[in-house]
Amino acid sequence: MTMMNECAVVKFGGTSVKNIGRIQHVADILKGISRTKKVLAVVSAMGDTTDFLVKLSKQASENPDKRELDMLLATGEQISIALLCMVLKDSGVRAKSLTGNQVGIFTETVHTRARILDINSERLETAFKDNDVLVVAGFQGVTVDGDITTLGRGGSDTTAVALAAAIKASECDIYTDVDGIYTTDPNKIATASLLPRISYGEVLEMARLGAQVLHPRAVELARQYNVKLRVRNTFKPENPGTSIDAGGDMEIFRAISGVVVDEDQATVAIMDVPDQPGIAGKVTQALADQNIAIDMIMQSVHPSAGLNSMTFAVADADLAQTIKILDELKAQLGAKEVKADPDCAKVSLIGAGLCGQPWIPALLFSTMGKNGINIKMISSSEMKICCVVSREQAPKAAKLIHDAFELGKANVASAN
Amino acid sequence: MTMMNECAVVKFGGTSVKNIGRIQHVADILKGISRTKKVLAVVSAMGDTTDFLVKLSKQASENPDKRELDMLLATGEQISIALLCMVLKDSGVRAKSLTGNQVGIFTETVHTRARILDINSERLETAFKDNDVLVVAGFQGVTVDGDITTLGRGGSDTTAVALAAAIKASECDIYTDVDGIYTTDPNKIATASLLPRISYGEVLEMARLGAQVLHPRAVELARQYNVKLRVRNTFKPENPGTSIDAGGDMEIFRAISGVVVDEDQATVAIMDVPDQPGIAGKVTQALADQNIAIDMIMQSVHPSAGLNSMTFAVADADLAQTIKILDELKAQLGAKEVKADPDCAKVSLIGAGLCGQPWIPALLFSTMGKNGINIKMISSSEMKICCVVSREQAPKAAKLIHDAFELGKANVASAN
Repeated sequence: MTMMNECAVVKFGGTSVKNIGRIQHVADILKGISRTKKVLAVVSAMGDTTDFLVKLSKQASENPDKRELDMLLATGEQISIALLCMVLKDSGVRAKSLTGNQVGIFTETVHTRARILDINSERLETAFKDNDVLVVAGFQGVTVDGDITTLGRGGSDTTAVALAAAIKASECDIYTDVDGIYTTDPNKIATASLLPRISYGEVLEMARLGAQVLHPRAVELARQYNVKLRVRNTFKPENPGTSIDAGGDMEIFRAISGVVVDEDQATVAIMDVPDQPGIAGKVTQALADQNIAIDMIMQSVHPSAGLNSMTFAVADADLAQTIKILDELKAQLGAKEVKADPDCAKVSLIGAGLCGQPWIPALLFSTMGKNGINIKMISSSEMKICCVVSREQAPKAAKLIHDAFELGKANVASAN
Repeated sequence: MTMMNECAVVKFGGTSVKNIGRIQHVADILKGISRTKKVLAVVSAMGDTTDFLVKLSKQASENPDKRELDMLLATGEQISIALLCMVLKDSGVRAKSLTGNQVGIFTETVHTRARILDINSERLETAFKDNDVLVVAGFQGVTVDGDITTLGRGGSDTTAVALAAAIKASECDIYTDVDGIYTTDPNKIATASLLPRISYGEVLEMARLGAQVLHPRAVELARQYNVKLRVRNTFKPENPGTSIDAGGDMEIFRAISGVVVDEDQATVAIMDVPDQPGIAGKVTQALADQNIAIDMIMQSVHPSAGLNSMTFAVADADLAQTIKILDELKAQLGAKEVKADPDCAKVSLIGAGLCGQPWIPALLFSTMGKNGINIKMISSSEMKICCVVSREQAPKAAKLIHDAFELGKANVASAN
């Protein structure tokens, strides 16, 4: 599709289309873009519509059939796209709404969390012949048998990125209700600065560690298809927001991108298990069976006795169930004890240029130590160093790290 | 489709699926039917959902684009079918919801009032292989290009009848919130009696004359494909309701089926137009251009002067605009005067066996005369005699006629 190089792919979330006034505002933005390019816009359901529909389904059934739940939930986005196109057409824009089925967003036959298999880009090409703006329902797709599916969490972001990939667009703008991605939570640390640019990998680390930015799934898809993302504020469309791409030259400007705090964590340790193959497998499988996600898995062997200890972090909400499961396993594993620490928070330093720079962990740990912050657990990977501290000390730790690495100047530094 | 002879086609209106409690009740009825037959159920949007969506569209646009309006409105029925199937599946029924698009209800490419062109009965056959109840969204269809359409007024009734015709079902049950069709409005005349059986033609006359029964369009389709209709009460499913069929032996039992009152009428006369071809055409075209429906069109020639007068009835709401249009036409037609009578109501006697029985008009008019009811205008056709009277006298006239023709005994008589 040659023309698609001139096509902007944009996505507006639920808060951006919360009511008719906001839909009119989104229509203005789209009209502006359409003066120079074709526009492919993906929209979510209006404000609380999805919550309302889920509530309705719970009244109908304690455990609603998933196929029927998708049939129900898909109406939310269908309402948004119709209303947005009414407004666009009234303002003279040649626009057309399309459901996931109409676009041909084919997914697996899995309901409430289907993955996209293929997109029929020819249908979009045909629709663009008579239209300048196509408005596509996010979050939904269709199986080869014609059943309506939904994509689950992060669905609308994923729709937008998948469409960008399908039409070979080089960029995809995600409009939301914040200015972009910050070095840390601006509601908690006043010196947080907006990042003009960040890499896919860093955003993925941030998202996994609790930052409410983009859904990891959409970012992973963008990385896979090399779609440059931009997070922008619907209510300040003149701002450039934050660009997300593969990075490349980025680390020349900035080793560290941000500090992320994930409160409500807990750590669990299974102590003194006789060292034999299969223990970690048994533990993680037992937890996975109950859909409990764990993180920061560490294992160490006591040099003297051939005894093993395994430690990991879980969400505080899952702690009670985790302890129960492990207590049941304890005898089978021959473990001496299951220990839990419910008072935990993760403070993580994220940076694409972090790896192989010894001054970074040194500065991090010495900053914590000098200020009396006790680090309970450490794990690190290519793009992050993650410390578990007490919940009470987490905000202070984040602020100290943010200051020590001069992240309040991130905006300036990377504008070089 | 051989098995389809054993398939019940049923339709539930908006009041029958107004909330989850009612949807559960409908599910119980469907479960009961499904014990002996396959069931094809058509449902409308829940209660006021369509009104809510129309209101939303009016907020978005003064004159919402019709394609987008259809995209919006179609969500109403999609919500109902999903919720109903959740409840059905919970109660162990093998059920599946289908949108108009999924069934393959193909319509013309006309929005907000599309007519059905074709139905893909093979898709239903396939879906019945694994299901005992298929729940289809009423009121909606799809064009050959995949655009969602809606069928306009009477849409869900029409969907049900069209599906019955497509699968060659001999019957279609329309569940609503009344017991069936009455000899006259039971809210106004206490002696109104339920008709066990009535012909398509009589129902059509009743519907056109203002009775809120079935939409004429669905009845016409049923007549065309010889689908026997039954109007039943969702909340008294054990009652047989009213059967509607071609009539046949019916008039042996009953010449008259009912009395219908249509208030809020007005009559208009264009007086003393020089008698020449084309006048009626000009008048009706000018009104049709503004979408004003007229009725009881009569024309008479003054024997002396070669002057013509044309008279007709319009809805009271259209009267002001009608007068304006005719005043503009007056000079062009050479008419002397446009007269209007805003104080009118139609009282109509309906009966398949009415034609060619002189005692019927005689009893009708003498009843009116003896009781001091002034008849302003009369028109008659094969199945009805329609009198225009003052709005004030209409209820009394209807009661007198209902009594004179002993319609309070209709139920008993036709049970012979």
